[in-house]
Amino acid sequence: MSAQDHNTAYGLTPALPANQKATPPATSSPKPLTPAQLPLPSTPLADRINSYAKAKLPTQTYTHSLRVYTYGCAIAHECYPDWNLQPNSKLDETWFITALLHDIGTTPEHMASTRLSYEFWAGYHALDILQSASATGSYGGQEAGGVASREQAESIAEAIIRHQDVQDKGQISLLTRLIHMGTLLDNVGVGVEMVHSDTIRAVNETYDRKGWSGCFRDTVVKEKSIKPWAMVSRIEGFEDAIEANGSGVMKEWDEEK
Amino acid sequence: MSAQDHNTAYGLTPALPANQKATPPATSSPKPLTPAQLPLPSTPLADRINSYAKAKLPTQTYTHSLRVYTYGCAIAHECYPDWNLQPNSKLDETWFITALLHDIGTTPEHMASTRLSYEFWAGYHALDILQSASATGSYGGQEAGGVASREQAESIAEAIIRHQDVQDKGQISLLTRLIHMGTLLDNVGVGVEMVHSDTIRAVNETYDRKGWSGCFRDTVVKEKSIKPWAMVSRIEGFEDAIEANGSGVMKEWDEEK
Repeated sequence: MSAQDHNTAYGLTPALPANQKATPPATSSPKPLTPAQLPLPSTPLADRINSYAKAKLPTQTYTHSLRVYTYGCAIAHECYPDWNLQPNSKLDETWFITALLHDIGTTPEHMASTRLSYEFWAGYHALDILQSASATGSYGGQEAGGVASREQAESIAEAIIRHQDVQDKGQISLLTRLIHMGTLLDNVGVGVEMVHSDTIRAVNETYDRKGWSGCFRDTVVKEKSIKPWAMVSRIEGFEDAIEANGSGVMKEWDEEK
Repeated sequence: MSAQDHNTAYGLTPALPANQKATPPATSSPKPLTPAQLPLPSTPLADRINSYAKAKLPTQTYTHSLRVYTYGCAIAHECYPDWNLQPNSKLDETWFITALLHDIGTTPEHMASTRLSYEFWAGYHALDILQSASATGSYGGQEAGGVASREQAESIAEAIIRHQDVQDKGQISLLTRLIHMGTLLDNVGVGVEMVHSDTIRAVNETYDRKGWSGCFRDTVVKEKSIKPWAMVSRIEGFEDAIEANGSGVMKEWDEEK
């Protein structure tokens, strides 16, 4: 593979404007999609990381990660077909792993273990575990499993490091745009126009979101409490927007009943 | 040391507003200072990293790093005495190392070796080499040398990762503020009101800046060329501001004669 092929395969290019308004979606009437139409990848690498994430993340954070992946796929499918995010592709595998690991820094164990902002710790942790087959230990039978190339691991780390760097200047990798779109939709209800309401229903019914808003809000509060310098402090009013989403767009599936 | 003592010693706290306007300087008439009054620290760790940086960085990037350190000290001394940036302190050592390593990702060798934005690669590299006495090999006789604690290494990495994240929302670590101030002054001439003009003269006469503006401008152009997704793309008009500084505030010492 040429360097450019690597960049495309792993979602570094096409680099996109950070300003989402500069790339309007291909449609204002996205068709409904179901998680069955957007299945989770299964490759040796994807399986190893999936097992690891499922073991390490609190359940709510894990299902959040699966919703983020699915929303990204749905948006790409309907609104950005030129990104060519195809099932069974390297890009799809790379995107899935990014979604699985983007919040790996927010677990109580990991958050307490570092002074780094949780995005930065997660990016570096991803670099390590992706390139070593044994680094993830034995989870769900995946004692070994696939490894990522340095380029693939770095693309994932770059997106994880920037996943809360939501602003409108300069450029970001395609993978970073995907993680922005998936997380903004699931966490603060931004971008609903890029998915059909039936898609949102199907995703939430498949990957349980009960109590996610309160859970994630508490994570942000805790991060800022123990690390007042943290990167997440840049998003003004974040906690309120998270809570509002739980009682707004996502209310039907967020409320503890 | 308590956790809070670590945070203060290593410049994580006090966390400061990213918006510099929120913390006006203590004086509008800073006194002149010379590099002799702001000497480079010399501890086993500082010496090891200094030798490494001197060997790895192009000469112009190395002297830039020393100017950045000195400017940060001068600004803290005159304008932010409450930061307590004292010679021979842990904070001083931590700040010196941050300045030495903030651009380690911009060397031709390192830039070509990664798909990560150069700030992110540098932060990861710093985490590695700071915590391992042998990681820097044999430079200038420093075959071993001091190591940083995990907390110190992480504070330095956090500041390096965010050193081009110049914006006005949320909070940043004290160390990040120092690297912002030192680099903004040396690269784009911002913050001149916080140093006496004699200080600028003395720093440039001690740590040669000939051709730095052109050199750094080329670095930014190259980064964006090989990594169009790179973090530095967020600073709109950066190349022009760098060039203008070389023919503006810093002209006397920048011009190749």
